[in-house]
Amino acid sequence: APKKLLILPGDGIGPEIMNEVRRIMDWMAQARGIRFDVSEDLVGGASLAVHGQPITQDVIDAARAADAVLFGSVGDPKWASAGFDRRPEIAILKLRQELGLFANLRPAKVFDSLADASTLKPDVVRGLDIMIVRETVGGIYFGNPRGIETLADGTRRGINTEVYTTPEIERVARVAFELARKRDNRVCSVEKCNVMESGLLWKEVVTDLHAREYPDVQLTHMLADNCAMQLVRNPRQFDVIVTGNLFGDLLSDLASMLTGSLGMLPSATLGAKGADGRMPALYEPIHGSAPDIAGQGKANPLAQILSFAMLLRYSFDMQEDAALIEQAVSNVLDRGLRTPDIMSAGRTEVNTAGMGAAVVEELARL
Amino acid sequence: APKKLLILPGDGIGPEIMNEVRRIMDWMAQARGIRFDVSEDLVGGASLAVHGQPITQDVIDAARAADAVLFGSVGDPKWASAGFDRRPEIAILKLRQELGLFANLRPAKVFDSLADASTLKPDVVRGLDIMIVRETVGGIYFGNPRGIETLADGTRRGINTEVYTTPEIERVARVAFELARKRDNRVCSVEKCNVMESGLLWKEVVTDLHAREYPDVQLTHMLADNCAMQLVRNPRQFDVIVTGNLFGDLLSDLASMLTGSLGMLPSATLGAKGADGRMPALYEPIHGSAPDIAGQGKANPLAQILSFAMLLRYSFDMQEDAALIEQAVSNVLDRGLRTPDIMSAGRTEVNTAGMGAAVVEELARL
Ligand SMILES: CC(C)[C@H](C(=O)O)[C@@H](O)C(=O)O
Ligand SMILES: CC(C)[C@H](C(=O)O)[C@@H](O)C(=O)O
Repeated sequence: APKKLLILPGDGIGPEIMNEVRRIMDWMAQARGIRFDVSEDLVGGASLAVHGQPITQDVIDAARAADAVLFGSVGDPKWASAGFDRRPEIAILKLRQELGLFANLRPAKVFDSLADASTLKPDVVRGLDIMIVRETVGGIYFGNPRGIETLADGTRRGINTEVYTTPEIERVARVAFELARKRDNRVCSVEKCNVMESGLLWKEVVTDLHAREYPDVQLTHMLADNCAMQLVRNPRQFDVIVTGNLFGDLLSDLASMLTGSLGMLPSATLGAKGADGRMPALYEPIHGSAPDIAGQGKANPLAQILSFAMLLRYSFDMQEDAALIEQAVSNVLDRGLRTPDIMSAGRTEVNTAGMGAAVVEELARL
Repeated sequence: APKKLLILPGDGIGPEIMNEVRRIMDWMAQARGIRFDVSEDLVGGASLAVHGQPITQDVIDAARAADAVLFGSVGDPKWASAGFDRRPEIAILKLRQELGLFANLRPAKVFDSLADASTLKPDVVRGLDIMIVRETVGGIYFGNPRGIETLADGTRRGINTEVYTTPEIERVARVAFELARKRDNRVCSVEKCNVMESGLLWKEVVTDLHAREYPDVQLTHMLADNCAMQLVRNPRQFDVIVTGNLFGDLLSDLASMLTGSLGMLPSATLGAKGADGRMPALYEPIHGSAPDIAGQGKANPLAQILSFAMLLRYSFDMQEDAALIEQAVSNVLDRGLRTPDIMSAGRTEVNTAGMGAAVVEELARL
């Protein structure tokens, strides 16, 4: 039976860049006879408009039943004041938690032909290839108690709780060590053990797991503030970084920006393999819904296309097809084609559909 | 009576760069007849070695009695495994909390003659002048419950609590708005209100205070992950940034690194004015104790000297003397003098004492 793929384009540029992935799927079906069982549904502002909530239980169930979820992006200025309980972000937070998607893989890679796009000097970022593994169902995002309370004297208090347990830390560290073995074999674990006990436990658990199961991998530790600095000072010192939910949020966005081309960066968020051997997984570009350019054909579809390639690699074990798509993207860039976000002098500007079509053209040639 | 100044050189390069401040004080006494009531004491590893603790109650009391504290830096590899309760960092955390030093001012400024030192393109950072105001006695650094507990099944849990109350947020926001009025009149408030209620309260309180008392200042809001990105993408968009303890820790270090010259950056941490009109305050360079180069005359004393200038400005209201020292530092750089950390081709390398002497020479000339 064909693999079940749930597509959730979301808001803003989500639907138009997802169209370009559809185009690649069509090519795979025609040229290589590979078919998926694809369904599509609403999330974010698109779901709020129809269902009054950013994600419905039906969609969560469909995501759970799927072999993989391909996500666009959520966020719509129309719903900016929808309130804390109806903000579009809930869609992604709920999917992470309900499917147990605990390991967010955020590659920060500089494409040779785009090294100049960074605000950092080309010498500093050329060849950059970092993988940040961020924990995504624990920490301060989900800990209790949380909320805003009013004290007797009228003072209000906002509270959130950072909690990490040994198994939560171990499972995400394991993902980092396994990935490192397929890369440069180095893991840097990041926390604030000098001020937070949750960070102290994090460091201890990673250290113990390393000694027990991954002594062949090089492990270092770094404080989160220093990591933010080092990513700017000398980002190529890193191979795999593993960190908690909140630090991972900032550090992975920081690392992405070093590449100078957010429109190029995919991500994966993986869960635990169940008894049936299936692993819940969601793939999404790291950029946002970019409402300011939505519907104008200006969006760069490559991050969404590369997210699909990651999906093929991690969820469907289709290494060859994944590599083919990645190669096609790289060729298109080498040919000088650029969407407006990565346009520079002497290159050829194309729109969203033009970029998608060019990738398919390259695929047909490879 | 002369102003009371407590000097806490701390570990590593702390003592040797503090010597260069002493040299400037000597010049001020001789050339301008300005005298301080200076005392000196131990913190960090230096205190651990003598007293078995990173800071004694005597030192905290002396800091409270002083008109200002000039701090070097703490951290010594000898005490790396001293344990969570005896780590040298406790010195600074205790001083912040016991003196109520709630507003950490972290300027990130690019000196014209050092614009090339950044890993960012000179075009992106030239003229950069950001002031980050970080809350330093609240948030997850000090919230309860905290600690590591072992559950019945042997699982361990690390817990920290982020708490912010309306008065805590208001007082630090007030510092940011006041500073903005003397600068470019713009404040960007940073939190994660899309996932944390403490951030939601933060945003509300800052918004209300702005409307009530600072409608003339331009206020914007930004999510912390986006702020980490924007600091890399286009740092000059910011004037004053105000944020909580943990985000401020990462973002201010990130902003510092944009300048490419950590050895140049001072900081101030201010408390509330008491009934007697005195304001507790601590000044320190943002760089660490750099144990690897300690005692070799390689350390750059300029951040420590500029911290002293900040002290004169904010604690003693000696605007003219502060400006004089800042001008002397700028002149020395223009003359091409460089300590090893900022050395580049065509400049003249000097050691710690050489740099301090050059600043005094310039002061004498101004
Ligand atoms: C949308 C938001 C809740 C989310 C997060 O903070 O985790 C986003 O910033 C991300 O990094 O995926
Ligand atoms: C020394 C440490 C406790 C401190 C912090 O995390 O606040 C330091 O990183 C800082 O920024 O002053």
